[in-house]
Amino acid sequence: MRLDIGLAGLGRMGRVHARSLTSRCGRARLACVYDADPTLASEVGAEFDVPWVTTYEELLERVAAVAIATPTATHAPLTVAAAAAGRHVFCEKPISLDRDAAVGAVEACETAGVVLQVGFHRRFDPDWVAAAARIAAGELGEVQLFRSSLRDMDPPDPAFLAHSGGFFADMAVHDLDTARWLCGEVASVTAHGNAADPAFAAYGDIDTAVVVLRFVGGAIGVLDSSRSARYGYECSTEVMGTLATARIDAPFPRGLEWRTPGQAGRAFARDFEERFPFAYPAELDAFAAAVLDGTPARVTGRDAIAASDLAAAATESWRSGTTVSVEAPV
Amino acid sequence: MRLDIGLAGLGRMGRVHARSLTSRCGRARLACVYDADPTLASEVGAEFDVPWVTTYEELLERVAAVAIATPTATHAPLTVAAAAAGRHVFCEKPISLDRDAAVGAVEACETAGVVLQVGFHRRFDPDWVAAAARIAAGELGEVQLFRSSLRDMDPPDPAFLAHSGGFFADMAVHDLDTARWLCGEVASVTAHGNAADPAFAAYGDIDTAVVVLRFVGGAIGVLDSSRSARYGYECSTEVMGTLATARIDAPFPRGLEWRTPGQAGRAFARDFEERFPFAYPAELDAFAAAVLDGTPARVTGRDAIAASDLAAAATESWRSGTTVSVEAPV
Amino acid sequence: MRLDIGLAGLGRMGRVHARSLTSRCGRARLACVYDADPTLASEVGAEFDVPWVTTYEELLERVAAVAIATPTATHAPLTVAAAAAGRHVFCEKPISLDRDAAVGAVEACETAGVVLQVGFHRRFDPDWVAAAARIAAGELGEVQLFRSSLRDMDPPDPAFLAHSGGFFADMAVHDLDTARWLCGEVASVTAHGNAADPAFAAYGDIDTAVVVLRFVGGAIGVLDSSRSARYGYECSTEVMGTLATARIDAPFPRGLEWRTPGQAGRAFARDFEERFPFAYPAELDAFAAAVLDGTPARVTGRDAIAASDLAAAATESWRSGTTVSVEAPV
Amino acid sequence: MRLDIGLAGLGRMGRVHARSLTSRCGRARLACVYDADPTLASEVGAEFDVPWVTTYEELLERVAAVAIATPTATHAPLTVAAAAAGRHVFCEKPISLDRDAAVGAVEACETAGVVLQVGFHRRFDPDWVAAAARIAAGELGEVQLFRSSLRDMDPPDPAFLAHSGGFFADMAVHDLDTARWLCGEVASVTAHGNAADPAFAAYGDIDTAVVVLRFVGGAIGVLDSSRSARYGYECSTEVMGTLATARIDAPFPRGLEWRTPGQAGRAFARDFEERFPFAYPAELDAFAAAVLDGTPARVTGRDAIAASDLAAAATESWRSGTTVSVEAPV
Repeated sequence: MRLDIGLAGLGRMGRVHARSLTSRCGRARLACVYDADPTLASEVGAEFDVPWVTTYEELLERVAAVAIATPTATHAPLTVAAAAAGRHVFCEKPISLDRDAAVGAVEACETAGVVLQVGFHRRFDPDWVAAAARIAAGELGEVQLFRSSLRDMDPPDPAFLAHSGGFFADMAVHDLDTARWLCGEVASVTAHGNAADPAFAAYGDIDTAVVVLRFVGGAIGVLDSSRSARYGYECSTEVMGTLATARIDAPFPRGLEWRTPGQAGRAFARDFEERFPFAYPAELDAFAAAVLDGTPARVTGRDAIAASDLAAAATESWRSGTTVSVEAPV
Repeated sequence: MRLDIGLAGLGRMGRVHARSLTSRCGRARLACVYDADPTLASEVGAEFDVPWVTTYEELLERVAAVAIATPTATHAPLTVAAAAAGRHVFCEKPISLDRDAAVGAVEACETAGVVLQVGFHRRFDPDWVAAAARIAAGELGEVQLFRSSLRDMDPPDPAFLAHSGGFFADMAVHDLDTARWLCGEVASVTAHGNAADPAFAAYGDIDTAVVVLRFVGGAIGVLDSSRSARYGYECSTEVMGTLATARIDAPFPRGLEWRTPGQAGRAFARDFEERFPFAYPAELDAFAAAVLDGTPARVTGRDAIAASDLAAAATESWRSGTTVSVEAPV
Repeated sequence: MRLDIGLAGLGRMGRVHARSLTSRCGRARLACVYDADPTLASEVGAEFDVPWVTTYEELLERVAAVAIATPTATHAPLTVAAAAAGRHVFCEKPISLDRDAAVGAVEACETAGVVLQVGFHRRFDPDWVAAAARIAAGELGEVQLFRSSLRDMDPPDPAFLAHSGGFFADMAVHDLDTARWLCGEVASVTAHGNAADPAFAAYGDIDTAVVVLRFVGGAIGVLDSSRSARYGYECSTEVMGTLATARIDAPFPRGLEWRTPGQAGRAFARDFEERFPFAYPAELDAFAAAVLDGTPARVTGRDAIAASDLAAAATESWRSGTTVSVEAPV
Repeated sequence: MRLDIGLAGLGRMGRVHARSLTSRCGRARLACVYDADPTLASEVGAEFDVPWVTTYEELLERVAAVAIATPTATHAPLTVAAAAAGRHVFCEKPISLDRDAAVGAVEACETAGVVLQVGFHRRFDPDWVAAAARIAAGELGEVQLFRSSLRDMDPPDPAFLAHSGGFFADMAVHDLDTARWLCGEVASVTAHGNAADPAFAAYGDIDTAVVVLRFVGGAIGVLDSSRSARYGYECSTEVMGTLATARIDAPFPRGLEWRTPGQAGRAFARDFEERFPFAYPAELDAFAAAVLDGTPARVTGRDAIAASDLAAAATESWRSGTTVSVEAPV
């Protein structure tokens, strides 16, 4: 049995989810699409051969569960509205750039008793899942060092940046979530940033950062992140422990090596969709399982808030030039 | 728009196709399943939430296109029956162990004007597709050496073997098709085999083989193949040319490396379904495109017969201990 | 023609150099060994079939050039004595834990007109040399991010630590030198440390660190380092630029892959001598070339002081919890 | 203590050995060089700073052991002369293209009680040594398939070919020796060849070959070999067993990866000297150990004859187009 999902928002991430729901998921299925732009809504509806609507209310009427991939500012109100209607929610990160709004949305879902899952897709990729399972089983021993990289190939359009919440909330938050997931809670954050491209400085933002984490147990973590690695999309993670070290070195999805005199070349992923062919469908299938089978959501609203808190601490550290302590999540 | 496909045969390959058609294909869709065994048909129908039937006639009534994954001996008659009913056919390899029957089935489809595509999935894997495209574009120069390996992890049940057509028709035929596809026609075949496990010798069959090919242009090819590599599923291909060499070294789908003192380990694919997450859905989507858009089938019935002829030549060479010449395909 | 070298100090590094000088160098040659311990001196002399002496004066009398691998505290006085005698000097890092003493030794060599080369071996490894050459040629564009890891497999004897100068001076200094070499001067340093093993805390030291660098041009660098990675010896470096990214991922010297069901394993280097079979002989050959041919030393005393200054800044940053600015080297 | 070795023959292999003996060996040392060409002898003597002679008799007078790297036709007589003078012999392969002469040379050394070691360097490379040790320890189980590739980057000068003994004796013989070493004796050989470049056909020779082996125990082996792989020097070996599979995939000596948009490139070895930095010195050190310590030679004259016999069988098979049986070595 499959969960019929109504998809809200048909921009880049919305279309990634539309593809997953129509041709990659096993338990979830695209039932209806919504976008305030009728041209876009009708086009995508036709492309994926599903009904389309131009109001969120209509979407909520048609389905028992929604996936929200609209602009960030609308995530929280749409989540609250869905909860009020008794609809389960898969929401792209972040729930909100405003902490109170995020907490309100999480509490609305808890009160309504609906599932809320947030879109940290990396938690569903087979490589990270396998690493997490072995770490949880004790095979790695105690964590000594965490290291992670997340780099886009090409920078986004500056217009997008203005509403992104800044580098740490938009980009580094993925690695901050991974850090918590694999190594436990973070006690303090020290962030460093640079705008190699002045277009980012013009928005008061950066395009390259290094964030140092101190975990509650004392271990150190470090992540680097960039808007423009140029060579491709990089998403790699290492956890060094007393018994073993897990390393996910990630840009190579292709098995073809092309050899010319003295040189062997391989192509690799250029964006997150190429890099994560399994993770995006898997997170939606896991959401469907949470709704249909009552299994617990693997990324909760509380997880999302904790990651956002770390991103906020990183932003503050970067601005102040000092280390910022972090409260334990509630 | 999607092509509704009726699936005939619900054994291992049938279920692989059922999964592709329900949750991995973008243009093809599972519409109905058929198996002569009502228990199996009803179970699979329920699992994938589609109607099920227990006669092939009922299946043909319901759909415009069928995918045939029944036991080998029935491939040709089911193809002929589909063609007679004007249904398009995706057929697992081989069309038939009997050459005349295979030719008859191909001609029946040609006469009926229906699409016939045969299940050489490797032609749809991104690695091989990329290699083929670069070779076709002249980037590799002239082929000097072709090398390919196909190895299963664990041997099949001996009961399966009795109707498999023997090692070369069942196993090596995939590499023989790849050889033709990437390097052109083969002029002669020399085959060597061994039954490392006596269970295979008891059936007059082998479990390990090396086949040497002489291409029409003079270049040499070699493939090795095994029923039981033990370490995992291996499917790798190399084409050495005057300008470049393409190498697909294939058993590593995972990016997680697990390091323990002095040692780094990686897991790899254990079977063809793990190895080819993209190729199986892609071949069905390509079949759908051939039906819906009129694009040419990328693996024709003539291709299948040519590969079977090479397998037959390999079998004869293995039995006689001599090199066997091959006629140019018609 | 070869340069006869007198080797002072026959501990671990001394013996590494003895092996290089007797069986791996092409332009340098072991002429005599010195150690204050007569048992050790005679044993090593016999093992390598060269004369041995127990005073440094005797060593200086016999050769035109010395390699100093004695305990750190003696590096500067032995360098000054060699310079006074007109002998060329290859000195293990650091020249001195005391900055004035280091400067004095460098100036003594400059005044005497003798070659002084310091033992940053990584500058002579083929991988780093190739990366440096391509970066210098402009192939990488502008540096955006520098990342480096240096990790020992097993921690050293605590007795050694007491005179090591601490983690940053002893360990991280190698990556600090690499950072300067590949990316230019550093403007500020922020260091974080942890003693995962309490034995290090007992000495007021740490065993794990992350150091964030801000280069003069604004780019960010980060290095992590550990006394006990457990899995093996890690030495890897990445430089991400606007045109290309160089990555040296370094623990795999072996080409043998051992496959068992579902798993492929490779052995890798367990210590620096295994990891750098080419760099240690190459640095001595380069020193010989500087002496014999008058080519410039590729790691000068000024380089060593600059790297030590960065290590001192890292130590200060770690202790103070603040970012420390660094003066431009003179 | 080191063995002083007199080197006969100062062509390409002679110079490789000269470099090993002067700057890479730990137990062997270059004592004197001989070449009939006085210009070459004096140049090489000067380059390596050792005495040079222009008659073999003078060489034998000066040393207790010789390394023979002269043209093939002189290997056997120089070995016999050395044995007659009581000198130990390291001889490049083959001992002779004439089987009787090879046997005579081996017997002369046996009679004289001198060590004879033949230059199959791959037996001394760390990767193959490790594989051989694990296979010998039973970790691989029973061999099911052997596969090996040896390919030069660029073809040799045709003038060299005329005296090479042909493709199988000159090139494939290395893999034939490896096959015997790792998997035991060979019962029959079937060889296929092609002259992709007509320059080889003009000499009655080929530049590409595939050889299929049947081991005495029934297992199959296959090797491919080429004079001109174009992309680089390839030397790789795989042994598939019932418990494990050893794979040495060999063209990557470098750890530097250079990433440009969408593509990662690595440089690899272009010739045997780059590929085998450890094996060439190690074989001479092992020879020295055999002489100095009385350890058994790890590649005997009998091994060399057995490998040559396999090469002769391959040549005959290629010419006749049939499988050729091989006698068990004595």
